[in-house]
Amino acid sequence: MTWTRPDDRQPDQLRPVSFERRFTKFAAGSVLAKCGDTQVLCTVSIEPKVPKFLFGKGEGWLTAEYRMLPGATPERQSREFLKLSGRTQEIQRLIGRSLRSTLDMQALGERTITIDADVLQADAGTRTTAITGGFIALQDAINHLLESGELTRSPIVHQVAATSVGLIQDQAFLDLNYDEDVIADVDCNIVMNESFGIIEVQGTAEGESFSRKQLDQIMDVAEKGIRELLALQRQALGQ
Amino acid sequence: MTWTRPDDRQPDQLRPVSFERRFTKFAAGSVLAKCGDTQVLCTVSIEPKVPKFLFGKGEGWLTAEYRMLPGATPERQSREFLKLSGRTQEIQRLIGRSLRSTLDMQALGERTITIDADVLQADAGTRTTAITGGFIALQDAINHLLESGELTRSPIVHQVAATSVGLIQDQAFLDLNYDEDVIADVDCNIVMNESFGIIEVQGTAEGESFSRKQLDQIMDVAEKGIRELLALQRQALGQ
Amino acid sequence: MTWTRPDDRQPDQLRPVSFERRFTKFAAGSVLAKCGDTQVLCTVSIEPKVPKFLFGKGEGWLTAEYRMLPGATPERQSREFLKLSGRTQEIQRLIGRSLRSTLDMQALGERTITIDADVLQADAGTRTTAITGGFIALQDAINHLLESGELTRSPIVHQVAATSVGLIQDQAFLDLNYDEDVIADVDCNIVMNESFGIIEVQGTAEGESFSRKQLDQIMDVAEKGIRELLALQRQALGQ
Amino acid sequence: MTWTRPDDRQPDQLRPVSFERRFTKFAAGSVLAKCGDTQVLCTVSIEPKVPKFLFGKGEGWLTAEYRMLPGATPERQSREFLKLSGRTQEIQRLIGRSLRSTLDMQALGERTITIDADVLQADAGTRTTAITGGFIALQDAINHLLESGELTRSPIVHQVAATSVGLIQDQAFLDLNYDEDVIADVDCNIVMNESFGIIEVQGTAEGESFSRKQLDQIMDVAEKGIRELLALQRQALGQ
Amino acid sequence: MTWTRPDDRQPDQLRPVSFERRFTKFAAGSVLAKCGDTQVLCTVSIEPKVPKFLFGKGEGWLTAEYRMLPGATPERQSREFLKLSGRTQEIQRLIGRSLRSTLDMQALGERTITIDADVLQADAGTRTTAITGGFIALQDAINHLLESGELTRSPIVHQVAATSVGLIQDQAFLDLNYDEDVIADVDCNIVMNESFGIIEVQGTAEGESFSRKQLDQIMDVAEKGIRELLALQRQALGQ
Amino acid sequence: MTWTRPDDRQPDQLRPVSFERRFTKFAAGSVLAKCGDTQVLCTVSIEPKVPKFLFGKGEGWLTAEYRMLPGATPERQSREFLKLSGRTQEIQRLIGRSLRSTLDMQALGERTITIDADVLQADAGTRTTAITGGFIALQDAINHLLESGELTRSPIVHQVAATSVGLIQDQAFLDLNYDEDVIADVDCNIVMNESFGIIEVQGTAEGESFSRKQLDQIMDVAEKGIRELLALQRQALGQ
Repeated sequence: MTWTRPDDRQPDQLRPVSFERRFTKFAAGSVLAKCGDTQVLCTVSIEPKVPKFLFGKGEGWLTAEYRMLPGATPERQSREFLKLSGRTQEIQRLIGRSLRSTLDMQALGERTITIDADVLQADAGTRTTAITGGFIALQDAINHLLESGELTRSPIVHQVAATSVGLIQDQAFLDLNYDEDVIADVDCNIVMNESFGIIEVQGTAEGESFSRKQLDQIMDVAEKGIRELLALQRQALGQ
Repeated sequence: MTWTRPDDRQPDQLRPVSFERRFTKFAAGSVLAKCGDTQVLCTVSIEPKVPKFLFGKGEGWLTAEYRMLPGATPERQSREFLKLSGRTQEIQRLIGRSLRSTLDMQALGERTITIDADVLQADAGTRTTAITGGFIALQDAINHLLESGELTRSPIVHQVAATSVGLIQDQAFLDLNYDEDVIADVDCNIVMNESFGIIEVQGTAEGESFSRKQLDQIMDVAEKGIRELLALQRQALGQ
Repeated sequence: MTWTRPDDRQPDQLRPVSFERRFTKFAAGSVLAKCGDTQVLCTVSIEPKVPKFLFGKGEGWLTAEYRMLPGATPERQSREFLKLSGRTQEIQRLIGRSLRSTLDMQALGERTITIDADVLQADAGTRTTAITGGFIALQDAINHLLESGELTRSPIVHQVAATSVGLIQDQAFLDLNYDEDVIADVDCNIVMNESFGIIEVQGTAEGESFSRKQLDQIMDVAEKGIRELLALQRQALGQ
Repeated sequence: MTWTRPDDRQPDQLRPVSFERRFTKFAAGSVLAKCGDTQVLCTVSIEPKVPKFLFGKGEGWLTAEYRMLPGATPERQSREFLKLSGRTQEIQRLIGRSLRSTLDMQALGERTITIDADVLQADAGTRTTAITGGFIALQDAINHLLESGELTRSPIVHQVAATSVGLIQDQAFLDLNYDEDVIADVDCNIVMNESFGIIEVQGTAEGESFSRKQLDQIMDVAEKGIRELLALQRQALGQ
Repeated sequence: MTWTRPDDRQPDQLRPVSFERRFTKFAAGSVLAKCGDTQVLCTVSIEPKVPKFLFGKGEGWLTAEYRMLPGATPERQSREFLKLSGRTQEIQRLIGRSLRSTLDMQALGERTITIDADVLQADAGTRTTAITGGFIALQDAINHLLESGELTRSPIVHQVAATSVGLIQDQAFLDLNYDEDVIADVDCNIVMNESFGIIEVQGTAEGESFSRKQLDQIMDVAEKGIRELLALQRQALGQ
Repeated sequence: MTWTRPDDRQPDQLRPVSFERRFTKFAAGSVLAKCGDTQVLCTVSIEPKVPKFLFGKGEGWLTAEYRMLPGATPERQSREFLKLSGRTQEIQRLIGRSLRSTLDMQALGERTITIDADVLQADAGTRTTAITGGFIALQDAINHLLESGELTRSPIVHQVAATSVGLIQDQAFLDLNYDEDVIADVDCNIVMNESFGIIEVQGTAEGESFSRKQLDQIMDVAEKGIRELLALQRQALGQ
C-alpha cells in the first residue's frame, strides 16, 4: 500500500509555485516566492565592498541570511537573537553556496551581494524555495546593474534551482509539505544547475537508513522537479 | 514662503493608507499595513501563559517586537543581533504600550499576546503604521478567540491609531515621508484612542526648540489624521 | 477631593534641589545632583576624537550613559550586563539629546563629550535630575577647557533643565517622588531651554488617556518647575 | 593524466587508522582516534537526565559537541567564543545525528549521552574521524553501564562509520588529507551503518557541478572505505 | 638611596582613611570608604534566598560585585559590558572570599548578602578599600537585621581588613597610591582578620622576582597597616 | 595525629611528573604534561604581530588561554562559552604572568606568543602543571625560531616552575591531588624561577585563617618541590 498525499499530488508533482518580482521597491532585487503555503521574501542588496579575505583580488562575493518571521508558523517562534540555531546556520550557508555557484566572481568585480531570505509563512521546503526564488531576485539585481551601466556583461554563468525529496513508506515523494515532512524517513535537499549538474546533495535518514538504490530514486524525482522549477524561473524572468 | 510637499499633499493630508487582512494564514492575526511606501507586516500570536510578574493574577499581557527587514531601505541595514539598538527598543516599547491601552487585561485572562511588526519597506512612519495596523491584526486575533469560543466577550475596550507630525519651516505637516523626515526640525509621534484621548505624545526638537503654541498646532494636525485613520480601521474591519 | 502629597508639597512645588560641584576630582566635570531623595552622580569626560559618522567634519559630539547602582533602591537591582533594558536605553538617549541641544558642535570642534549619569539613590525623577545636573557638570567641563586655553569660546549656546509632571486624580503634580509615581495615571517628562523652548516632551498614559486640556496643564506646571531649576543651576554655577 | 596522491596512496585507500581506547580515565568512554595526521579525542559522558522535549517519555538522547584546539593547525585558530561558526555547528549536528542512529532510545532510558569531539591535530577528515572514533567511545561507555548493572541490555542497535571522498580531476579519491582537500572540486561526507545503509550523505560542489554518475563513483569508493573502518572498529573493540 | 614618597609618608604609613556610614539610605548597609584619593561606595543588600548549590542546607551566602564608574580615573574608562575583565573578576572574587570569611553561614541562615563595591574615584588600593569599607557596611546591614529581630544573634564571627604593600627599590611601602603603584616591582594584597590570621595573600612580581626575606618584610608592613585599619573600623562602628 | 596521604606520599613529595614533548606536530611547541593523574596539553603558537598597546615599541608579548575539556572530570563540565568563569580568568592570567617573566621582550621582538593549556584530565594542580609544562613547550617553540634563523639569540632569560601546597590539619602538604584539595584548609600556588626568586604567591584560607609561621612552612615545602620540577624540566629538555 502506498502513501496518499494530503493534497492528492502525484509522488513526483510539485506544489503550485509562483514568483512575484519587485515585491518591495527599495532593494535591488525583491521576489516573493511561493511554493504551496510556503512564502519566502528574497531581497538582494549589492554593496561596493568585499570581505577581508578578498581584499585586492578583484573578485566579488555573495552571502546569504535566512530567518523565519515569528508569525510564520502556527505556534509563534522566538526570533533568533543572541545566537543562531545550527539549523539556521546550515540553511543560510546552503543558500549562499548554491547561489555563489551561479556567479563568475571576476566578472562581478569587487562587490558583495547579500541575499536575505525571510520566511513569511512556513509549510516546509523553505530553504529550497529561498534558493529557487533567490535566483530570480539575483537576476533582477544584476539586470539593474547592467541597465545602469555599472556592469557591462552579466556575471551570472549558471541558473540554479532546488527542491526537496522525502522517502515515505520506501517511496520517493517530491516537495513535501509540513505534514509529510514530519513523517518522512529520509529527507533530502538537492540543488542543480541548468544542465542538471549537482551543486549540492544532502540526504539524512531520520529513522532507518536508506539504500544506494533509494538514493537513485530520490535523485530521479529531484531532477524531474528541478527541471520544472528551472522552466518556471525562466518564465517568470520573461526569458 | 511655505514648504511644498514632494507628493503635493496638503499639510494635514495623510498618505494613501491600506490594510490587507489575513496576509499570512498561520498567525492568529496578520495585516499588511501600508502608508504610502511604508509597508509593515503585523502578525499577532496568542499564547496561554503570562510573564512571571503576572503569575496567578488572572490577567493577561501584550508585548510587541519591531524589526526592519534588511532590504527595507535603499541601503541594506544589518539585522540587529546580540543587542537591539536604542531606537528599536523605544519603538517596540511604544507599540506595546499603545496596544496594551486597548485591552481589559482581566477580560483577556491569562494569555500573552505578541504583536510582531516587521517592516518590509520603510519610508518613515513605520512605528505609527505598526500601531495602526497592529490594532486591526489584534482585533482579528481576538475575533478568532471569540469565534472559537475561547473568549465569550471581547477584551478590546478601546480603538487606537497613531500618526506622526513634523515641523518644517515652522509649520506642522502630517505623516512625513522619509525625504520630509530628514529635514524636519521637530518630530512628533502621537497615539490616540477612539475619543481622541491621548495615549502617548512624544515630541523631539532635532534642531531648534519649539513653542507651546507649535505643540498645539501639532496636536491639531495629529488629531485630524488620527480621525481619518480610525475611520479607515473601522472600514477595513467591516464595522 | 484632591490628592494630598506625602511630603505636603504644593501641586506645583519642586522637592529640595541641590548640586554639589566637583564631587569627584579626576573627571573634567563632576556634580552630585540631588532632588529630594534622588541622587545622581553626573561626570563629564572629554576625548579628542569623534564617532565615525563625524570623521573630518570639524564637529564634535555628545553622548550619555545612564545606570542605576544596584543599591540605589530598597530592593537590590541587578546590574545591566549582557543587554541594556529598553528603559535604560530610552533614558540615556533622552539625556544625550537634551544635552546635545545646548551645544554648537562646530564651536566644540572634534571632541566627544560623554555624560555619565550614575544613580546612587533612586526616588523617581532620575532622568530629569540627570539632565539638570548634567548641564552643570557639562558647564564645569567646558570651563575647564576654556581655562586651559584648549577652547577660546564656549560652545554652550543654551541652558537646559528638565522635570517630570504627573496626573493624579486628574490634576497635574510637579516632580513626583516614587510613591506618587506608582499611582499616577499619566507620566510626563519635559525638557526646556532658557527661553522655555521645548526640547523634548514625552507623555504616557499609564491607565486612562488624557485630554488636550490636561496636556496644557501639565505644560504649565512643568514650565513653572523648569523656571526654578534654571535659576538654581545659574546660582550653583555662580552666574 | 591522473592525480598522484602526496602519500602515494591508491585512490580508494584509507590513511593509517588507529583507536586508542581509554585515553583518559575519568570519562565513561574516551578514545583518541587517529586517521593519518588527524587526531580527535572523543570522550563520552552519560547523565541521568533528558532535555525538556523528552520529559516523561522514557526515552534517552544523544548530543555532540565538536571543537578544534587552537594549536591543532599550523596557524593558531582562535577558540570559538560567544558564537559558534556555521562550520562547527554543521559538524556537531552531523556527529550527533550519526551516532543517534545507532541507539534504541527506549532501551537507553532517560539518559543523555554527550559525545565531545576535540580535535588535537587537524589534517582534514576531522568530522568523519570523530564519528568513527566516537562510536568506539560510545560502545565503551555503554559497556560501562552494562558492567555496572545500570543497563541490562545494550541500547546500541547499529554500528556506524564515516569517511570522506573527494573528486580531483574528475576522479573519486578516498579520505583526502588537507593538501588534497583544498584542491578537490567536490567534497563528500558519507555515514553508513554495518549493512551499508546510508545514514547521511552530504556532497558539495566547490567549483564545478558533478554528475549523477560521479555521485555513484563517490558512493562506491565511500562504501569500500567504510567497510574497512567498520572492521577496524570491531577489531579495536575486540569483537 | 631610598624612595621618597610623593606625599612624604613614612614607608609604613597609611594614607588618611575615613568611612562615611549610611551614605545612601535605601540599601541595608552603605559606606563611602576613602583611602587617600580612592573612594569606594560599598552597599550591602540582603535577600531571603540562596544560590542553587545551597538549597535546603540552612546556610547563607555572600557574594560581591566590583565596578569602576567611568569617571573614576582621569581618562574615562568604558563600562564593562558583555564580559568582565579578568581584573574585575579577580577583584570581586577576592572581596567575596574575604568578607565570607567573617561569617558563620549557619547563623546567617538562608540569606544571600551582596556587597556592591562601586569605585567613585580611583587612586590605587581600590580592592583593599572595598574590603575594609565593605566590612563596615556589612556590620551595619547585619545590625539592621538584629534590630528588626530577623536575626537574634550576629553571624559575624570575624573582623577583616585589607591593605596593599609594594616593593620599590627593594623596600616595602604600605598602601601605594597610583603614582607609586606604576613603578613598584612587586605588588602585594593582604587580607587579615582581627587576630592577624591571614585570609589571603597575593604577591606578584611585576618585573624582577622577590625573595623569601622580602616576602617577610612585606608581611610585617602589611600587619602594621591592618592593625590600624582594624582600629579605624571599630572606631567608625562606635565599638 | 597526622594526615596520611591517599597515595602514601611524604608530605613534601611530588606526584610522578612527566613531559611528552612534540605531542602534536603542527604547533611550534607542544607538550603533554602529566602530574599524577592531571594531564595538560600545552601548545605554543607564535605570530608576527603584537597587541595594540605595544605597536611600534619593538617588544613582544606572551598571553595564555586555559580550558578544561568537558570530559576531564568524572562529571562532565560544560564548556565555557558566553563568558569565562572567574576561576578560568584567574588561572589564565596567572599562567600568562608566570611565563612572561621568563622572557626578555626586546629580544623576542614584535611577536606574540600564545600558550594554550587544555586540561585533558583533571586531578588538581592543573594551573601549576600548565605553567611547568608550558615552560618546556615555550622553550621548544623558541628553539624552533632559533633553528630557523628567525631569532639569533634566545629571549628566554629565566626558567620557571610552579606547584601547589595545602594545609591539612595544620601541616603543609606538597602537590595535593583532588581528594586532598577538597579537604585542605589553605590552598597556595607558588611560582618560582631558577634561583628560587618568587614570581607569584597566592594563598587563600578556605576555612580558618593561617599564621605567618604557617606561610613560612608552605614556602619551604614549595621550594623543595619547585627545585625538583626545575630539574625535571632541564632533564626533559636534555639540558
